[in-house]
Amino acid sequence: MKLFSEDIVERAAAACNVGDISHATIGEMVLVSQWLQKETGIPFVRMDQGSPSLPQNRYGIEAEKAALDRGEGAAYPAADGIPEVKQAASKFMKAFMDIDISPRACIPTVGSVMGSFSAFIACTQRTPGKDKVLFIDPGFPIMKSQLRVLGIEWKEFDIFPFRGESLRDELERQLSSGDVAVITYSSPNNPAWICLEESELEIIGSLATKYDAIVLEDQAYFCMDSRRDLSHPYKAPFAPTVARYTDNYIITTSSSKIFSYAGQRIALTCISDDLFDRRYPALDQRYHNTGVFGPTLVAAIMYMITSGCTASAQFGYARMMELACEGKINFVEDTKAYAERAEKMKRIFCNNGFNIVYDRDVTQEIGDGFFFTLGYGGLTGEQLLKELVYYGISSISLGTTGSRQKGVRACTSRITDDVFPLLEERVKAFNEDHKQKRD
Amino acid sequence: MKLFSEDIVERAAAACNVGDISHATIGEMVLVSQWLQKETGIPFVRMDQGSPSLPQNRYGIEAEKAALDRGEGAAYPAADGIPEVKQAASKFMKAFMDIDISPRACIPTVGSVMGSFSAFIACTQRTPGKDKVLFIDPGFPIMKSQLRVLGIEWKEFDIFPFRGESLRDELERQLSSGDVAVITYSSPNNPAWICLEESELEIIGSLATKYDAIVLEDQAYFCMDSRRDLSHPYKAPFAPTVARYTDNYIITTSSSKIFSYAGQRIALTCISDDLFDRRYPALDQRYHNTGVFGPTLVAAIMYMITSGCTASAQFGYARMMELACEGKINFVEDTKAYAERAEKMKRIFCNNGFNIVYDRDVTQEIGDGFFFTLGYGGLTGEQLLKELVYYGISSISLGTTGSRQKGVRACTSRITDDVFPLLEERVKAFNEDHKQKRD
Repeated sequence: MKLFSEDIVERAAAACNVGDISHATIGEMVLVSQWLQKETGIPFVRMDQGSPSLPQNRYGIEAEKAALDRGEGAAYPAADGIPEVKQAASKFMKAFMDIDISPRACIPTVGSVMGSFSAFIACTQRTPGKDKVLFIDPGFPIMKSQLRVLGIEWKEFDIFPFRGESLRDELERQLSSGDVAVITYSSPNNPAWICLEESELEIIGSLATKYDAIVLEDQAYFCMDSRRDLSHPYKAPFAPTVARYTDNYIITTSSSKIFSYAGQRIALTCISDDLFDRRYPALDQRYHNTGVFGPTLVAAIMYMITSGCTASAQFGYARMMELACEGKINFVEDTKAYAERAEKMKRIFCNNGFNIVYDRDVTQEIGDGFFFTLGYGGLTGEQLLKELVYYGISSISLGTTGSRQKGVRACTSRITDDVFPLLEERVKAFNEDHKQKRD
Repeated sequence: MKLFSEDIVERAAAACNVGDISHATIGEMVLVSQWLQKETGIPFVRMDQGSPSLPQNRYGIEAEKAALDRGEGAAYPAADGIPEVKQAASKFMKAFMDIDISPRACIPTVGSVMGSFSAFIACTQRTPGKDKVLFIDPGFPIMKSQLRVLGIEWKEFDIFPFRGESLRDELERQLSSGDVAVITYSSPNNPAWICLEESELEIIGSLATKYDAIVLEDQAYFCMDSRRDLSHPYKAPFAPTVARYTDNYIITTSSSKIFSYAGQRIALTCISDDLFDRRYPALDQRYHNTGVFGPTLVAAIMYMITSGCTASAQFGYARMMELACEGKINFVEDTKAYAERAEKMKRIFCNNGFNIVYDRDVTQEIGDGFFFTLGYGGLTGEQLLKELVYYGISSISLGTTGSRQKGVRACTSRITDDVFPLLEERVKAFNEDHKQKRD
């Protein structure tokens, strides 16, 4: 039986200025579920927003407090970051990805969202006529919203039918027009938790070089693929990255998920040294500087947006990365709770008629982690999202992520132990009411 | 006698990738003076960059540390700011400016630079054809650099010959084309420390309403006009603001200068409630939301740039504003050192042949504060900047600030007591060497 009537869900949408909840963004879904919870007193099972629910890393906190006590917050931090965070970042990329990026090319940003926002600007302005972004979807809807702010055009395709070698033809088709400035994806993927395999990264890297596109690789869920133990610094296996296959790359990563540090808004943009030093006359013309990519991105673009990042947060982030490189923090272990939740949640859903939509990488099943995708019979993502709301479960439709598949994204971050009985009960009720239609 | 030869100054410029030091930006001037200092061991008198040199406000630090201990840094802060900072901001605007802005319309940003960056986007996108920015110069060069990033056009005029009633005609001339989306200025002014008087703010406000332009008022130096005691909350005199004369306004202010908090990157964008609620079809069309100005600026623009501001810094800022409203922090008194330095510096310069370029507001002489402007005989700003470098004094040319006057900007922030003997000696030497040419 439904927990919330169609009528009250419609009232919730109206009260939150949401036109059609089937197409709700994450932010809108948050508002609607909060409204329903407040209005009825019935708690919601919140699978919508990915907000860390683990305790903030205490080494970061201690380093921040020490920096504040030293008065580091008085003067502007260097535009390209304090030396401590730059050096730690360079080591961190070496320790866990086995790639070489010099400290000067590792730039702290206010969330990785600021890294992609700035990179989109620099990359699409560097060569006249090469000004579009290509999304290997599904992806984080915010990146398209960034392009809407900036008035940058994009193309997109759902990778679902193009895993492995077939990715090459589709990418060639998309890139051959020559107008693609940036190729972007996240891996581990938000929303689908798929991970690109080495063979796919090789295809992306070699075509990025061939067509002079820059790969913007979103590593917000750095080393969180639970299928392999990526937790040992300077020891294989290392996290897969396109950086092994092209010099045309920018990697963004963040403290938000791996150190449970989302509130402090501190992340990294790491630029290939080769790209960092490249000169682009179009950048010179626009910014009246020497047109060198890295310094332009930092001094002519990022500096104009926030003039640096919070000093104490930089010291905290530096310390956490240093300790991780020394093997004194195991951030992979620290965030394993998400994978454990995913495993339990998937079992509940799959035992009750649901299926995992993006269920495989090229050579193996996907792992457990921060997100997974759910389908139910012939329901579209929009229908499934809405039907789940009636049973007190919030999610987001895969349609909002550029996916062409039928389903929703489920996030494990808020599903703490106490929520499981509620979840199981509701999922069972949902299946009871829908199974005839499903079959 | 010159401290640095033309030859070494040229080498410094080349080493720092600075084409022509006469036109150096602040960042370039910082690099050149640091290079010269390092190379020769001769200390520079640094009047270039405005970086707070007073100790960071300790109440802010304590509130940040407490927030970190509570784990506030783990989860994403609300996109429009934590309730504490919003409520404190609303009170702060009432206490020191005597204006009413509701908490929902007070948005924390990563530096006021992020406030203006985001506001430029929203304001120029709200009405088709109304897409230019008008600068009442001189001004902060970074704001024009922001427009260069975004590809937004601007117009500008130097207010020097248009003080008082004559401002009306010039503004009418600039606005009558109907394409101005934003009118912007800083007051107290960076670089000239002039302050717009009530009569001028009335002109700006009424014409902004008439031509539907939004005034972006930069109050980074909030209440730092030392001529009147603006330090008493809820008591006249209040800081002058255009908010008294139009509903078309956005005020940015910051913790950087008044609380010596630049490193923590926390500031405010306060939007007129009337503007906050206005609907713009063009915003709706672009962002597929309801097109309401305030929510669009926050959720569709700012959120896409940084997804909120550092949580601990918000708690710190909230606490400092609360204490200021309760009269327990006197931030005006706390920053008086800058005015005292300005007074001494101006005396040294004026005793040695220099003059204050922007020396008056409509009804009175300008006060002492963070910046002042210097001229010397017939030297252009570019010539004066370069000549001063030979004597170990760095500044920025007024030409880079949109001023049409001959001179440089001097910043008091780094001129601590120990620097004065050096400054006096060098200014004397400069005057000795130049006075024949001056007369």
